[in-house]
Order: sequence, then C-alpha cells, then structure tokens
Amino acid sequence: MYSIFSSEIVVRPDDIDMNNHVHYTKYLDYLLAARYEQMERDYKMSMEEFIERDLTWVASTAHIEYKRALKLNDIAVVKTQLESFSGAKCRVNFWIEIKATGKPASSGYVDYTLVSIKSGRPARLTDDIIEKYAI
Amino acid sequence: MYSIFSSEIVVRPDDIDMNNHVHYTKYLDYLLAARYEQMERDYKMSMEEFIERDLTWVASTAHIEYKRALKLNDIAVVKTQLESFSGAKCRVNFWIEIKATGKPASSGYVDYTLVSIKSGRPARLTDDIIEKYAI
Amino acid sequence: MYSIFSSEIVVRPDDIDMNNHVHYTKYLDYLLAARYEQMERDYKMSMEEFIERDLTWVASTAHIEYKRALKLNDIAVVKTQLESFSGAKCRVNFWIEIKATGKPASSGYVDYTLVSIKSGRPARLTDDIIEKYAI
Amino acid sequence: MYSIFSSEIVVRPDDIDMNNHVHYTKYLDYLLAARYEQMERDYKMSMEEFIERDLTWVASTAHIEYKRALKLNDIAVVKTQLESFSGAKCRVNFWIEIKATGKPASSGYVDYTLVSIKSGRPARLTDDIIEKYAI
Repeated sequence: MYSIFSSEIVVRPDDIDMNNHVHYTKYLDYLLAARYEQMERDYKMSMEEFIERDLTWVASTAHIEYKRALKLNDIAVVKTQLESFSGAKCRVNFWIEIKATGKPASSGYVDYTLVSIKSGRPARLTDDIIEKYAI
Repeated sequence: MYSIFSSEIVVRPDDIDMNNHVHYTKYLDYLLAARYEQMERDYKMSMEEFIERDLTWVASTAHIEYKRALKLNDIAVVKTQLESFSGAKCRVNFWIEIKATGKPASSGYVDYTLVSIKSGRPARLTDDIIEKYAI
Repeated sequence: MYSIFSSEIVVRPDDIDMNNHVHYTKYLDYLLAARYEQMERDYKMSMEEFIERDLTWVASTAHIEYKRALKLNDIAVVKTQLESFSGAKCRVNFWIEIKATGKPASSGYVDYTLVSIKSGRPARLTDDIIEKYAI
Repeated sequence: MYSIFSSEIVVRPDDIDMNNHVHYTKYLDYLLAARYEQMERDYKMSMEEFIERDLTWVASTAHIEYKRALKLNDIAVVKTQLESFSGAKCRVNFWIEIKATGKPASSGYVDYTLVSIKSGRPARLTDDIIEKYAI
C-alpha cells in the first residue's frame, strides 16, 4: 500500500459554470494540479525532471464519480495514492473532499502512461523512477 | 438499441495544453457541446426546455479512454448513443474520432442524473422525456 | 487615493498553453479571482451579497499589458486598486507580479458596470456600496 | 487600409459562466481562434509556418470593450483587421458580432509581438512576412 498525499486547490470563479458549481471537467484539472504539486513536494521528482529526461505522463484512462458539488469559496482537498505500476503505466486513485466539511465531492482513478516526448511512444518505468514513486 | 448521433467540434487554440495537444479534460467538454447540439437537433428537447421545467442534467460518473491525441487544426467528430434509462439516470456512450482520418481519439461513457434545480434532488424521468430520448 | 489590496493565485497546469506559459486570457481570470477574494476579505461586501440584492458586476472594458510570462510553479501576486466611481460604473487598476522575484508580469484596468440581474440594466451605485468600497 | 477577414466561432457550454453568458475572457479566446484560422486561410502563412521558423506571436497588449453578451447557442462572428506594423510588432483590430442579429458583442485590439521561440526575444518582421500580411 502506497502513501496518500494531499493538496489544497482554491476554487476560482472561472471554474464555475452555468449550474453555479464547479464545472465537471475542472475536477480533473484539480487532480492534475494536485499531482504536479505532489510529484515535486512528496515524490521528489517533479514533472520538470521527467521532461528533462524527454519523458512526459499522459492520461490513458480517467474515471470519476461525482458525489457533491464544489462551489465558489470552497477549497478542494485532493488526495491521491498510487495503486500499481506496470510497464509504462501506473494507476493513481484520487479522492476530492470539501475542506470546510470534510465531505466527499468526488473520487476516481486515472491511468497514466509514461511517454517519450520525441517518439511519442510509451517508455517503460525505470527502477529509479519506481523507487521514488513506490513510497 | 438507440440511435447514434454525431456532432463536429473544431479544436480551438485555447484547448491546447503544454503537451501541444488537446488538454485531457477538454474531450469531456467536446462531449458536452455535442450533447447540447444533439438534444436540440436530434432529440427535439433542448437543455433550455429542461431548465424551463426546473430540471437540469448533472454528470454522476464519467469514464474516458484516450487513444489518439487531438491536435490544433483537427475537427473532432463526437458520436453519442443512449445506452439505458433507470429512475432519474441515463447512461450515454460516446466515441470521439479525428475527422480527417476517421481514427478513434477517445471513447467512454457518462452517467447523467436528472435533477430538480430548486431542490437539487434527483427527478425521475417522465414518460414524455423517455419518449423523446428513446429513439 | 483608494487602498491597494493583494491576493495570491497559484498557477495551475491547466492555465499553461502551447507556448509553455500562462495563457494570455488567464491573467484576467486571476484578476477576477483576486477581486472576489478582496470583495469579501477587504471590502466586507462579497459578490454573494451583491447577488442577494439582485445585483452583479459585469466587465464593460478590459485593458491589459503583458510584461513578463507567468510560468508553471509561479505564484501570481494580484494587486488591485479602485480608481474611480461614476453612476453604475467603477474602474479598477491592477498589477500582477511574479511572487518569487517581485517582477511585474502584467498591468491594466477593468471598467465594471453594476447590473440588475433581473432586468439586465445598469444599476446606479448606492451610497452604502460606495461607503464600503471607497476605502 | 488592410483587409477585414471573418471567422465564425460556435459558443460551447464550457464557455458559459455563472452569469449565464460567455465568460469575459473567452472573447479573447474566440479572437485567437479566428486569427489562427485567418492566418492559414486568408494570409496563407499559418502559425505552424511561424513555429517552423522558430517564431511565435505573443500578445503584448489586449484591449476589449463588451457591448452585448454572447449566450449559449450563439455563433460569434469574429472580424479582424491589421492596423499597422512596426519593428517586431503589429496591431490587430477586432469586432465580434452575434451572427443571428448582426449586432455588436464586443470590439477592441491586440498588439502582438513576434518572438524567437529559442531566445524569447522580439524578432523584427521580415519583408516576406509583411508582404503576406499587408493585404
């Protein structure tokens, strides 16, 4: 079982849609912002370090369940946990909570594939990457 | 088996992210734009008509698989098909193709829940709505 | 001369465009987020309180100069200052700085018009609103 | 006097904000989409061709006036016209109309600076670029 890391994302007015709550695709943007922060702060290997090695992460599957609307003035608490690694892929589970109440807003997972920027092809996870992320 | 409807969405520069392709959350925005068009043009009951009845559709689950990147100058062909109705819910399957090549860019499904705008609670699909959408 | 208030906005990955810096329209979204925070925290009359009175603010003019690109991992410091009131309008000057260096990223102004939500027509600023904002 | 070119942009649901009209920053995204189309279709020198020469255009000033709200189901007609060239800069005037009524939604201008992607420094407009764009 890998560690759960947590980031806080402040809802911005431009995230709100005509239904007066955070637009449904923005939850996946909050997840992305949380992962970037956690890659640097918690895993000690930032997205920039991947890019310097000609690598980037692309989503191959995203699955998200919506439980409670995030609204203006809310702070989203985005928790993520690596579930597994395999070849060029890993699965990240996530949970988004409303900070003020601790109630769940959303949960799901994303499968990421490590890709060579130059070739566009999947790149097997190397041991040193797994060592940093398997915490 | 219900009908498959199709809409074309032109990729905009503001949809492109730092990886030089359409940002992963924008695929779900293209789906949304396609559904709005199809609700009015194909099902003959637009989102506005739902809102006039104090109803709106919210996503309760979204599942998306990414197969091929959409890029600047691409036109996305977004095909959708209702799979099932149940209570206040329905499932919509979707496929996004790159117009120039016909190749798949993405596929998945979204579960939508019909909700009363005033109460925020699920609203059972009425017969006249099912009649319009079960085509 | 009215007070200058300051808010910090953390750059998110979905703000970055194909040029690898914050997309040019997002600067105006950072300004909007800063104003919402300052309306509540500094002027003690939040956007919600305007909406409860059937009022909202809409931009009638925006003018922005770009000086230095904001990038991923930057924190934007957004300073704003009311310049003047007149009828249903006010002008807000703004300056966006890069927190790490204190260097200017952008500056400009936005003219806002107070509008009745129901009628859609301009609504003259009342004395109690001016009293709260003329600080 | 240079030519006026025109592009149509279909409003998408994700462009609509909590005020139930197109978000104020999206007008500048519609302008960007129109310019990209016109660079390729009308000026015969697309953004991709600039990038192949290690060049890109960045906005140095944007000025926009809002006259009438664009709404869901609207099509925006975005007209642009080069006003002047100077060194590494050019000014583009724009007008956004609502297609169904022909009424003005917005107008303004953007000053663009041609920049070397590698150095990040302004790049003087060459004669062959001016020849293509001074039409």
